[in-house]
Amino acid sequence: MTPRRVVIVGGGFAGLFAARALRHSPVTVTLIDRRAHHLFQPLLYQCAAGILSEGQIAQPLRAILHRHENVRCLLADATDVDVKGRTVHAQRPQGGSIVVPYDDLIIAAGMRQSYFGHDEFVANAPGMKTLDDALEIRRRIYRAFEMAESATDARDRRHWLTFALVGGGPTGVELAGQIREIASHTLDREFRTIDPLEARVLLFEGSDKVLAPFGDRLAGRAADALRDLGVELHLGTRVTGLDEQGLTVEARDGTTTRHPARTVLWTAGVEAPPIAGVLARATGAKQDRAGRIAVQPDLTLPGHPEIRVVGDVMSLNHLPGLAEVAMQSGAYAGRAVRHGVEGRTRKPKPFKYVDLGSAAYISRGRAVVKAGPVHLSGIGGWLAWLFIHIAFLTGFRSRLGAVLSWSVAFACGARRERAFTLPTADTASAEPRGTTAALRGP
Amino acid sequence: MTPRRVVIVGGGFAGLFAARALRHSPVTVTLIDRRAHHLFQPLLYQCAAGILSEGQIAQPLRAILHRHENVRCLLADATDVDVKGRTVHAQRPQGGSIVVPYDDLIIAAGMRQSYFGHDEFVANAPGMKTLDDALEIRRRIYRAFEMAESATDARDRRHWLTFALVGGGPTGVELAGQIREIASHTLDREFRTIDPLEARVLLFEGSDKVLAPFGDRLAGRAADALRDLGVELHLGTRVTGLDEQGLTVEARDGTTTRHPARTVLWTAGVEAPPIAGVLARATGAKQDRAGRIAVQPDLTLPGHPEIRVVGDVMSLNHLPGLAEVAMQSGAYAGRAVRHGVEGRTRKPKPFKYVDLGSAAYISRGRAVVKAGPVHLSGIGGWLAWLFIHIAFLTGFRSRLGAVLSWSVAFACGARRERAFTLPTADTASAEPRGTTAALRGP
Repeated sequence: MTPRRVVIVGGGFAGLFAARALRHSPVTVTLIDRRAHHLFQPLLYQCAAGILSEGQIAQPLRAILHRHENVRCLLADATDVDVKGRTVHAQRPQGGSIVVPYDDLIIAAGMRQSYFGHDEFVANAPGMKTLDDALEIRRRIYRAFEMAESATDARDRRHWLTFALVGGGPTGVELAGQIREIASHTLDREFRTIDPLEARVLLFEGSDKVLAPFGDRLAGRAADALRDLGVELHLGTRVTGLDEQGLTVEARDGTTTRHPARTVLWTAGVEAPPIAGVLARATGAKQDRAGRIAVQPDLTLPGHPEIRVVGDVMSLNHLPGLAEVAMQSGAYAGRAVRHGVEGRTRKPKPFKYVDLGSAAYISRGRAVVKAGPVHLSGIGGWLAWLFIHIAFLTGFRSRLGAVLSWSVAFACGARRERAFTLPTADTASAEPRGTTAALRGP
Repeated sequence: MTPRRVVIVGGGFAGLFAARALRHSPVTVTLIDRRAHHLFQPLLYQCAAGILSEGQIAQPLRAILHRHENVRCLLADATDVDVKGRTVHAQRPQGGSIVVPYDDLIIAAGMRQSYFGHDEFVANAPGMKTLDDALEIRRRIYRAFEMAESATDARDRRHWLTFALVGGGPTGVELAGQIREIASHTLDREFRTIDPLEARVLLFEGSDKVLAPFGDRLAGRAADALRDLGVELHLGTRVTGLDEQGLTVEARDGTTTRHPARTVLWTAGVEAPPIAGVLARATGAKQDRAGRIAVQPDLTLPGHPEIRVVGDVMSLNHLPGLAEVAMQSGAYAGRAVRHGVEGRTRKPKPFKYVDLGSAAYISRGRAVVKAGPVHLSGIGGWLAWLFIHIAFLTGFRSRLGAVLSWSVAFACGARRERAFTLPTADTASAEPRGTTAALRGP
């Protein structure tokens, strides 16, 4: 008898936990991801901010799973599902497509950044979902200070020292805090012309509070902490225009304001990747407004007990897009497949998310943590954050390195991973172009 | 009295040591580099090979020099020198040019990869001079194994598992060793379809030995060590054609051979950057075949006692392009400027390079080291290499991290920095394109 073939699309928390749950099952697992690594998404902003390296937050999927001998990892972009023929079709990065047959399919494709129909914004406002995004943001943050230092007029300098963040969720708040910390603790003595502390950080959020899911009290504390740090909050605003010189926002009362800013970072929304639409059309499954696929209580699709959708791209009881939801739903789907293979006939209990709490880092010494009745902010929240994240990284070889990097960053403000590359177009050596303004003397 | 203005072009070893030598001088120093970081070039191949992170080998210039209060760093590409008006013209990465006046000019612009007139090779054979190069090579090495794993026919798989290195200097030898080590120690248990050990590594070198500057005995030892590792040496060959499927080489007797290889890495030669030609034309200085600028024994240009050329781009007594030469010549130039400012009138002693030896890493437990009469290879060479590099990294915050990364890599073959990104074009999610071959089953 050939073993049952399980295909998992996506190697984030959900896909990884599904694969792990199948470790001792007599199945073959094919894990397809368009990246070769699993990303520790909750710390992505620390890579962007120059504290952690790529390797500290991204581990090769096949390295994580090398002892799972029934799991095979493939680097490819799953583009289509043939639900009748039970095959997944995927494109390899350097060309060529592959077809992978399945008996059970677990879709854990995650969500990607959404620009709410303004896809033209992406060139001037990178999102924060992938390692590429983090490296792009790292480049833009540190390059902006360099450009301000070499600016030949005050206006240009001011615009390079203005950073705009769109989105007041954990990622936006974390990045806002990081930029102010970089200005005040990392770069404070390194420049001769500019004072990095002049850097303005503007945070735009559509609702009337940052970190709304943490509840009024913690959201208020977070807003206070951000204002203390020097972050300018613009709540109840909506971005209507964005280019490389800045952005235009509209307030609730309809007034629009133009904010010059050479660095704009986007963390405002998410949308499902194309594979979700493909699957919905093929199965008749419903999608919510962001494209998440509605699942039944056992995470299968109606009429397709062999297809499960888990993680951020799953729509069930308005569960939030958190790592913890992804892990639990992925593990549930993996176990359900295992139980099927083992021949259990009892109908499985519906998936139930156990909320272990959530945390958002604001700055050195400040974080908010919510875990059931426990609400922490300030230094207490920060210590809880630290403890949670060190514990979470367990099993990742990078834990020791991350703790080392944090110690250096927290103790003396130094960031070890500030190196950034410049796209070739940036540095293509030009013929002398007839020069312009003279530099302000040192 | 306004302080004397010193402009240094280039923040490699030569430029950095020049700036440091001017620390306590009553001068203002402007250090112009097209990257914001100083690169620890001798370990660049370890970044490419996934052992070290960017931050472990690249430190922001302004962080290294933040206590040098008379030094100002500018991120810009120096494109022109007006030797009459004594100004350097430079392009900022995001647009705008700047003009920096000087009283003393130190050119430490380094060398870049040369393709010997075949600039079209670069797209399919990245060089190894910059951080971007290292990340590109990291991407290509690890992606090749991924592509081999998902290949649907044996020929394609074989071509993805063939790595060609052009150039038998230290960098080519180090990369060859790294790829074999990655195959045998890092990836050995991670794949299900391919055996990474099948990876062939072909090393092409124009002369009749690898590491020729180390002398016949060490060169022979290095060749033996490489063959032991499984590297196929093709000496006395010259690349005449190169595309994304492989390369064509010509032997001394005129016979040409085609080698299919989906990964080709180029470390064969160097050439001076455009600024060297600009300077030579403006001053009448001579350039050697690779574009290096001929200097006088005191490193100044004939007729221009205010212009010094140091490091790799300096041509003097056929000194090799080594970090040690760059450091010593940079420091010499900085001291010479200082002595001028201090009003010393005695003619300076000519620059004299003190050869402290050189080292090339082959693989775990094998390196060659030459220091005067001392010639080491095998484990002795390796221990010397390790000692030298730990000592050299002194003063870099990354030393502890590097030692940690090395311990992990040497002890268990694990590489902590394998994460790579894929260019957008690679992963742009395509509409389902009508699929092709079925996968070889697991």
